[in-house]
Amino acid sequence: MTLSIYLSGEIHTDWRDQIQEGASATDLDVTFTAPVTHHAASDDCGVAILGAEPNKFWHDHKGAKLNAIRTRTAIEAADIVVVRFGDKYRQWNAAFDAGYAAALGTPLIVIHSAENAHALKEVDAAALAVAETPEQVVAMLRYVIDGKLDGYTDKRDAAE
Amino acid sequence: MTLSIYLSGEIHTDWRDQIQEGASATDLDVTFTAPVTHHAASDDCGVAILGAEPNKFWHDHKGAKLNAIRTRTAIEAADIVVVRFGDKYRQWNAAFDAGYAAALGTPLIVIHSAENAHALKEVDAAALAVAETPEQVVAMLRYVIDGKLDGYTDKRDAAE
Amino acid sequence: MTLSIYLSGEIHTDWRDQIQEGASATDLDVTFTAPVTHHAASDDCGVAILGAEPNKFWHDHKGAKLNAIRTRTAIEAADIVVVRFGDKYRQWNAAFDAGYAAALGTPLIVIHSAENAHALKEVDAAALAVAETPEQVVAMLRYVIDGKLDGYTDKRDAAE
Amino acid sequence: MTLSIYLSGEIHTDWRDQIQEGASATDLDVTFTAPVTHHAASDDCGVAILGAEPNKFWHDHKGAKLNAIRTRTAIEAADIVVVRFGDKYRQWNAAFDAGYAAALGTPLIVIHSAENAHALKEVDAAALAVAETPEQVVAMLRYVIDGKLDGYTDKRDAAE
Amino acid sequence: MTLSIYLSGEIHTDWRDQIQEGASATDLDVTFTAPVTHHAASDDCGVAILGAEPNKFWHDHKGAKLNAIRTRTAIEAADIVVVRFGDKYRQWNAAFDAGYAAALGTPLIVIHSAENAHALKEVDAAALAVAETPEQVVAMLRYVIDGKLDGYTDKRDAAE
Amino acid sequence: MTLSIYLSGEIHTDWRDQIQEGASATDLDVTFTAPVTHHAASDDCGVAILGAEPNKFWHDHKGAKLNAIRTRTAIEAADIVVVRFGDKYRQWNAAFDAGYAAALGTPLIVIHSAENAHALKEVDAAALAVAETPEQVVAMLRYVIDGKLDGYTDKRDAAE
Amino acid sequence: MTLSIYLSGEIHTDWRDQIQEGASATDLDVTFTAPVTHHAASDDCGVAILGAEPNKFWHDHKGAKLNAIRTRTAIEAADIVVVRFGDKYRQWNAAFDAGYAAALGTPLIVIHSAENAHALKEVDAAALAVAETPEQVVAMLRYVIDGKLDGYTDKRDAAE
Amino acid sequence: MTLSIYLSGEIHTDWRDQIQEGASATDLDVTFTAPVTHHAASDDCGVAILGAEPNKFWHDHKGAKLNAIRTRTAIEAADIVVVRFGDKYRQWNAAFDAGYAAALGTPLIVIHSAENAHALKEVDAAALAVAETPEQVVAMLRYVIDGKLDGYTDKRDAAE
Repeated sequence: MTLSIYLSGEIHTDWRDQIQEGASATDLDVTFTAPVTHHAASDDCGVAILGAEPNKFWHDHKGAKLNAIRTRTAIEAADIVVVRFGDKYRQWNAAFDAGYAAALGTPLIVIHSAENAHALKEVDAAALAVAETPEQVVAMLRYVIDGKLDGYTDKRDAAE
Repeated sequence: MTLSIYLSGEIHTDWRDQIQEGASATDLDVTFTAPVTHHAASDDCGVAILGAEPNKFWHDHKGAKLNAIRTRTAIEAADIVVVRFGDKYRQWNAAFDAGYAAALGTPLIVIHSAENAHALKEVDAAALAVAETPEQVVAMLRYVIDGKLDGYTDKRDAAE
Repeated sequence: MTLSIYLSGEIHTDWRDQIQEGASATDLDVTFTAPVTHHAASDDCGVAILGAEPNKFWHDHKGAKLNAIRTRTAIEAADIVVVRFGDKYRQWNAAFDAGYAAALGTPLIVIHSAENAHALKEVDAAALAVAETPEQVVAMLRYVIDGKLDGYTDKRDAAE
Repeated sequence: MTLSIYLSGEIHTDWRDQIQEGASATDLDVTFTAPVTHHAASDDCGVAILGAEPNKFWHDHKGAKLNAIRTRTAIEAADIVVVRFGDKYRQWNAAFDAGYAAALGTPLIVIHSAENAHALKEVDAAALAVAETPEQVVAMLRYVIDGKLDGYTDKRDAAE
Repeated sequence: MTLSIYLSGEIHTDWRDQIQEGASATDLDVTFTAPVTHHAASDDCGVAILGAEPNKFWHDHKGAKLNAIRTRTAIEAADIVVVRFGDKYRQWNAAFDAGYAAALGTPLIVIHSAENAHALKEVDAAALAVAETPEQVVAMLRYVIDGKLDGYTDKRDAAE
Repeated sequence: MTLSIYLSGEIHTDWRDQIQEGASATDLDVTFTAPVTHHAASDDCGVAILGAEPNKFWHDHKGAKLNAIRTRTAIEAADIVVVRFGDKYRQWNAAFDAGYAAALGTPLIVIHSAENAHALKEVDAAALAVAETPEQVVAMLRYVIDGKLDGYTDKRDAAE
Repeated sequence: MTLSIYLSGEIHTDWRDQIQEGASATDLDVTFTAPVTHHAASDDCGVAILGAEPNKFWHDHKGAKLNAIRTRTAIEAADIVVVRFGDKYRQWNAAFDAGYAAALGTPLIVIHSAENAHALKEVDAAALAVAETPEQVVAMLRYVIDGKLDGYTDKRDAAE
Repeated sequence: MTLSIYLSGEIHTDWRDQIQEGASATDLDVTFTAPVTHHAASDDCGVAILGAEPNKFWHDHKGAKLNAIRTRTAIEAADIVVVRFGDKYRQWNAAFDAGYAAALGTPLIVIHSAENAHALKEVDAAALAVAETPEQVVAMLRYVIDGKLDGYTDKRDAAE
């Protein structure tokens, strides 16, 4: 079972790399997609290609729509959407992506620290798993895809 | 053309009342739905009905899922989803609802102040209108539903 | 069988009135929806409500999106979409609506004069009927809804 | 992320070749589809294969339906639909394809000159990007697919 | 529970009347829809309204498409589709409607005599009930809608 | 907000009556649907109407399919599906209905005693609420539909 | 553009072989699927594998359902459905498949002789092409997939 | 025709191995997916990765949701869903999966012993085949995919 995983949300830490390296280390049969994480390119892509806008709103608008071609295509193609909320910034686009995935019925994994749990309770309620670290996401992907769980599947099934 | 309008987001100002009163004053053929806006009830509904949870995460989880019965049913039944972002709090559930509506293809109207425009650019990019005030929403609903626009439709169409 | 009919396209003749009056005269159980046909209001609605734009492109953009709330909601709710192409103007929005209806699988009736037939062949190929006059549309709606056809159903069925 | 791109619309200039060559030059992982662009074949395909029609309307009809097998299959399979409106002809089929893509929720890129902007405002309002040249489309595909933007991603992200 | 029932197929006996009268006699909360059953009107409706065609194929084509506006709208709105195959004629349109309903996932009831069972086995395999008489259809609708079954629900439930 | 509620599952206690009476007592704007709960009628409906079957498998098969016309139509029309698992019998049809509702994305409420919780964990994981009593379901419907919660909404919102 | 083609209908002539050989001869990038065309196997598959049925109706039923696993999976996966009606037998399953494909929105090509045109007018009305011979189908597939049309695309486009 | 087969249900016998070995022995072009069948891992996966829960309900809940990422993804990707009910345990998750597959319209094959037939009649009614042994499933897959049926397709078709 090959899965396509979309990694949405926070762009200021290396959590995507951690998940991809973890997945690679355990030979998972997955592909990862993500938004463009170069902050300046993401902000300016619309005007850089399609022409400058004196009004900041339309500057942002052109860029956000161009980014949407990438992000929506990738979310709609994903088997699992992972959304990470960092401890800074409002990250409304992360919550937007979570809602988008929920409406599509795509399995959703959320990553955030315990302190944001109350504020994210509606998002968590739509998720199939709520993690705190990238390592947990790798362990879940390994279990979901390869059926492997340390301390269990490396032993005889005591339940049998 | 009767429309059902879902009013999502901020619960600390009376913006929903303003829209509903404005719509009523101009006799619009609409119905409005919304989340439960009683903050304490919304937080505690799960445990109040289904039993206490010592762990705050599951306390929130039960409540958020119960609220989801109301909110998802209403969003899926809505012809238009209006989402207001206030200037306080993180309001991830508002952005989640916007993403949900976008994935359903339901027309989306967003309300926020100019200062949040950059942070909300991905949400705005998915919207068919970005307003700053409830009065603008009423004027848009009046135009969309009854085809009336002050200064225009009360005059002969100069364009003809 | 009550039907909802969306009347798209040309706004410079009274074809919508002719169809609605014809339907009313024969007591058809239908409701009609349409875009806002006040040309100046349709062009300026966005900026009139949401604020002026110095750039004509964004002036148009705001208006077109606001109109889309009305038109898409009505097209998606329609049982039949009727699109009229006049002999003047490019009317790309009429063809856009026809494509939209076709993708939804909604029955499509097209009205145009014979001289535009070649240029509209792709649109006609997606239609279930191609008419030249509003009277023909009324006769079709009467047949489709009430099963009445002059010269036939007012007589005994010779085919039996 | 491999994308399938449908190139709809104008058939009298080499814009499709420009996009395909540009995509090839930057090694984009894309496939392109398009309508049959041989004008005479496109007009006559129905009667050439299925038998002559003395009536021009049915001559066109047979051809348009046969072409629809190709175009609808390709549009429905596309990740992105690019529609170009030239400065000549009515090009209703281009607008029809744009409406079709919009109803499917497929990301839409429109190409047209500034002078047609007002007439195409409804189509532009449904698009995620409005370009004037094939080069801009190539630059957007490169950004969307490979995340590369000249002057940005070839430098360190100043925003970090 | 109100249901909409589409009655497709054979038009040479009064089976539709029998079902409608039976449903009326037992006060079922249903509405019935059907194709136009006036044979000559059904054959000629296209040319009668939209203009004569010298070629019989296009004569039929125009009529069949106009009828499709009625039949597809009704089938898509139906909660249950009932299709009757008579003992004469090929009735390909009846089988077509059955396939259409099956693809929509709409509950399908088929009526035919035992002698056609083998030839209709693929249609029967897609149906939720295979009846021989209109009376059986009425009895099924009464059970499905009102939960009434002679000899059972008029007695105390012995199974309790 | 009017909701349609499907009550699936156990047929040997009066839990449906309790929910309907509770909903009626608090004037909820709801309609309830359910399978036929007359056990003998439900088992025999197929053969009683369509003719006897000597083979018990086909006896059951005819009945189960006839019941499916009612149950699937009602589940697909429901805004909320409530499924109760009693302490006796295998009740595979209850779990089947829960899976059906889950795949449709319809909000699911499950009722069962604590002792069945482990065996029902996959069903509970798909539910938005897990209750033990009909009274809890009534309280949830009252909250979801009317936004009323005893001890909260009858008081001023302390959270404001 | 690779296409998957489902070949439905008549099983007593070698029309499927003709189409597949024709497609192979012109190197079309297609795959073909079809029902099991071994008549006795198709009739008896259910009882041969799952056990005999003394009642012919259930004998047929078991087989028809088993065949449906193959045929529905193939039809739903098809890009184009080709249905051939021979001059003998009632072939209700062919018309059923045509209706099924039409409801899915899959392009439909019908093959039949002129004498059956009137009886098949509803099926033809749902088709994008009506052919009389397998050779015409091959020519259409070649045009649709490779854009090649003898007498046209082997020459310079005179229309340019 | 390559098919993906999901094997749901009972985990205490080697029926999955038997089907996979049988399919391999006859060189079927299939892939198989299944839930994690290591009982202890399946029960504890949630807490093992995401942290312990003192409350058994939430212990189960975390695990069931994590398993759902695997099972729903696999069911939604499956061309055929095979569900086996053993003679022990309540196996509500097996019935849940059957309902889920039915709502998706995915062909369903059920395996159970004759003694459970009455209790499973609603599930059987939604299935396209009801088998008793893994060998029968292999024979059906071989027929459905390769069109081979012992005693039939290895002989000349007597029906021709």
